[in-house]
Amino acid sequence: MDYEKDRTIDEIVNLIVDLLKEKKYIQARSELLNINAVDVAEILRDVIDILGIEIAVILFRTLPKDMSVEVFSYLNIEKQIAIINVITEKEIHYIIEELAFDDMIDVLEELPANIVDKVLANSTKEKRKQINTFLNYPENSAGSLMTPDYISLRKDMTVGEALAHIKREGMDSETVYTCYVKDVGRKLYGIVSLRTMVISDDHVPIEDILEKDFVSVNALDDQEYVSNLFKRYGFLAIPVVDNENRLIGIITVDDILDIIDEETTEDFQKMAGLQASTEEYLYTSVLTHVKNRFPWLLFLMVSLMVTGLIITHFEGLLSKVISLVSYLPLLMGTGGNSGSQSATLIIRGLALGDIELKDSGKVLWKEIRVSFIIGLLLSILNFAKIMILDGKGIFIAATVCLSMLIVIVMAKTIGGMLPMMAKKLNIDPALMASPMIASLIDMITVITYFILAMLILGI
Amino acid sequence: MDYEKDRTIDEIVNLIVDLLKEKKYIQARSELLNINAVDVAEILRDVIDILGIEIAVILFRTLPKDMSVEVFSYLNIEKQIAIINVITEKEIHYIIEELAFDDMIDVLEELPANIVDKVLANSTKEKRKQINTFLNYPENSAGSLMTPDYISLRKDMTVGEALAHIKREGMDSETVYTCYVKDVGRKLYGIVSLRTMVISDDHVPIEDILEKDFVSVNALDDQEYVSNLFKRYGFLAIPVVDNENRLIGIITVDDILDIIDEETTEDFQKMAGLQASTEEYLYTSVLTHVKNRFPWLLFLMVSLMVTGLIITHFEGLLSKVISLVSYLPLLMGTGGNSGSQSATLIIRGLALGDIELKDSGKVLWKEIRVSFIIGLLLSILNFAKIMILDGKGIFIAATVCLSMLIVIVMAKTIGGMLPMMAKKLNIDPALMASPMIASLIDMITVITYFILAMLILGI
Repeated sequence: MDYEKDRTIDEIVNLIVDLLKEKKYIQARSELLNINAVDVAEILRDVIDILGIEIAVILFRTLPKDMSVEVFSYLNIEKQIAIINVITEKEIHYIIEELAFDDMIDVLEELPANIVDKVLANSTKEKRKQINTFLNYPENSAGSLMTPDYISLRKDMTVGEALAHIKREGMDSETVYTCYVKDVGRKLYGIVSLRTMVISDDHVPIEDILEKDFVSVNALDDQEYVSNLFKRYGFLAIPVVDNENRLIGIITVDDILDIIDEETTEDFQKMAGLQASTEEYLYTSVLTHVKNRFPWLLFLMVSLMVTGLIITHFEGLLSKVISLVSYLPLLMGTGGNSGSQSATLIIRGLALGDIELKDSGKVLWKEIRVSFIIGLLLSILNFAKIMILDGKGIFIAATVCLSMLIVIVMAKTIGGMLPMMAKKLNIDPALMASPMIASLIDMITVITYFILAMLILGI
Repeated sequence: MDYEKDRTIDEIVNLIVDLLKEKKYIQARSELLNINAVDVAEILRDVIDILGIEIAVILFRTLPKDMSVEVFSYLNIEKQIAIINVITEKEIHYIIEELAFDDMIDVLEELPANIVDKVLANSTKEKRKQINTFLNYPENSAGSLMTPDYISLRKDMTVGEALAHIKREGMDSETVYTCYVKDVGRKLYGIVSLRTMVISDDHVPIEDILEKDFVSVNALDDQEYVSNLFKRYGFLAIPVVDNENRLIGIITVDDILDIIDEETTEDFQKMAGLQASTEEYLYTSVLTHVKNRFPWLLFLMVSLMVTGLIITHFEGLLSKVISLVSYLPLLMGTGGNSGSQSATLIIRGLALGDIELKDSGKVLWKEIRVSFIIGLLLSILNFAKIMILDGKGIFIAATVCLSMLIVIVMAKTIGGMLPMMAKKLNIDPALMASPMIASLIDMITVITYFILAMLILGI
């Protein structure tokens, strides 16, 4: 957009902060009027952080009403609550009423019950009932993502009548690009795209152009399943039905973009040994950070202690050939890195659907060959290095290099197979990532290395 | 969809393979007719793998022409080339002509030059020129994702005229939901959504309802930048312009869903020390797997060797207090895990735009506090364990636990800051992930631990 070429959001924030400090509210407001609401929300968020909520709300109140609701919908939930805490009840009511249904549900979910009650006091009984139903869908379910604001057509309408209907109803619905036709008992009967209607003649009956081979999801389906359907079929929207197959809402692709990010972040977190969390890093408190990180570190520590125990067992060997110790990080590190490469490839392949459970054999066979070649190459390089640079003699060199080959092959096959096994056991494969595998490989490395050392060095 | 409820894709594949083996081609065909083309493509792909390309092509040829082109577009490039290698030139020509423009470009990019020449021999000069321009956009650029099949409107049209125009042209364009208005010299003047047109009256001039505050990208912009714009603003399509601001194509959201996956996979790969690759795991040869994994393992190995060197330096100390060795994996592992937690959080935060460069100070201060608390907790637990379970005496316990506290604090601050520094230097932050940080932390751990040991144990 034009303003992005001329100045960045940070520059606008600085300008507005200066204007607000000088109480030039009208001037600050006019800076925002030609900016996309998404960007205004980011600016407002920075202003809240810099000048505090009281002054930021003065700016928020100067915005045109339509825009203020849209900006509000793009703020994160902490900032939304902060604003709600300082504006009047009448203002809260206006915002909540004007928000898109799914955004409204997101806000209501986070508000204290007494505020929700007040907000809903003036709503019709039917609307309150609907809101309560939506509030009850579990987090991460299709139901928690959907909106009831879709366009409903009758199959006995003509295209001309349908377009006239959309002209009346289109303003308030989440999308007009896919419309839904219901059967008796509110059951979903077919879908028809606006594109098909626009390129059809006005007198054509909707019945003739609707698709009955549509994909729908259940309100209780997991959001990851829903986002995979969007990726697979390239939908703009997907209908959501209840257990009786009645149409109760739709999910649109723009909301799925956020979900994809959320699901990916969760995978990244699990793979790094973190409690999954959708809170932004900077807005997460120190104690929550500790809570998200401590349990996994503790769990992994226990397995590292086992490795320590194994080493203790071989202290006699080590005190005789102390130089064995200096190759431990090399072996453990390379093993961990090799295993984490394989685990990442398999975890990602499983997440994208490129790899399925039935491919276990292929994965195993591929990892064995790849690891053998890599192990051989790295072992040869190490052999030369230990003999020539370290001058350690052939027995140490042979011990280290043979261990390395075995460790890399074991690391890569374990790294490849553990995520497959997790999937089979319905555990998230992402949990079988680097830290887990590295800890396991550490134990295997130490045992392999010390036993080989005793055999080769004859101790 | 209905068939998914009754039977899975694997079951359909088995059925079809059986039918093909008995040469019941027409029956096999009829099993596919009511299935979504995306799923038919997956079935065909499995049939190629099981029965070979020759038999699979017999099935492919029985499909209705429209469907065969759509199915072809959903196959991956290896399977597309395999089919092209066995069908006739006339068939190739038909498929290429009927493919959506962006899908056609993707296929042409992978075909040998002589086949491309033959395929394009019958095209108009203008079309060949356009195809060549598109073929020349760099991989991962906006230009490589776009299609020229968009709806172009004039600003002096009325809504009624525009809808009539869409009715004529809409069948062949990638999307009709966003239409584009050009100025003199093909410059992009404004955009107008089909939704706005459908809810406006027929006599309203397009000029009155078009948006001039649109976001566009340059054909040479990186695809990651483009996909971030889609996520930020929730677009269904985005216009692509050249350096003179002339409209040359559009990118639609369904193609962006694939790009998001691709970019995420790349991040996962980099974070695990893998060469980024978009090829599917199972379709990547053993040698390519070796090539993607070997360089990073070798690079990381060099730093692990440095850790070995440092240990060699302290062999005198170790031979006096051999039990120090058994705590090395614990310290190195916990350090690596702590660092990788922080690095992952920051890398992901940077990728999502939640964390920016200006937040470095906040990140540092947060990591210091979090790491101090975690370090203290883990050290206390370890102290108790070493004193009580291991019975090692207070000096060893103090050495290990003080080292642990220092290592965790260093690991978390380094893990947090390295990705920020990489971003500042325009290096991909994802490269500063677990394996890199673990190697670095290993060195720091060994030095800290041994120096503390000498000081505390008085050696």
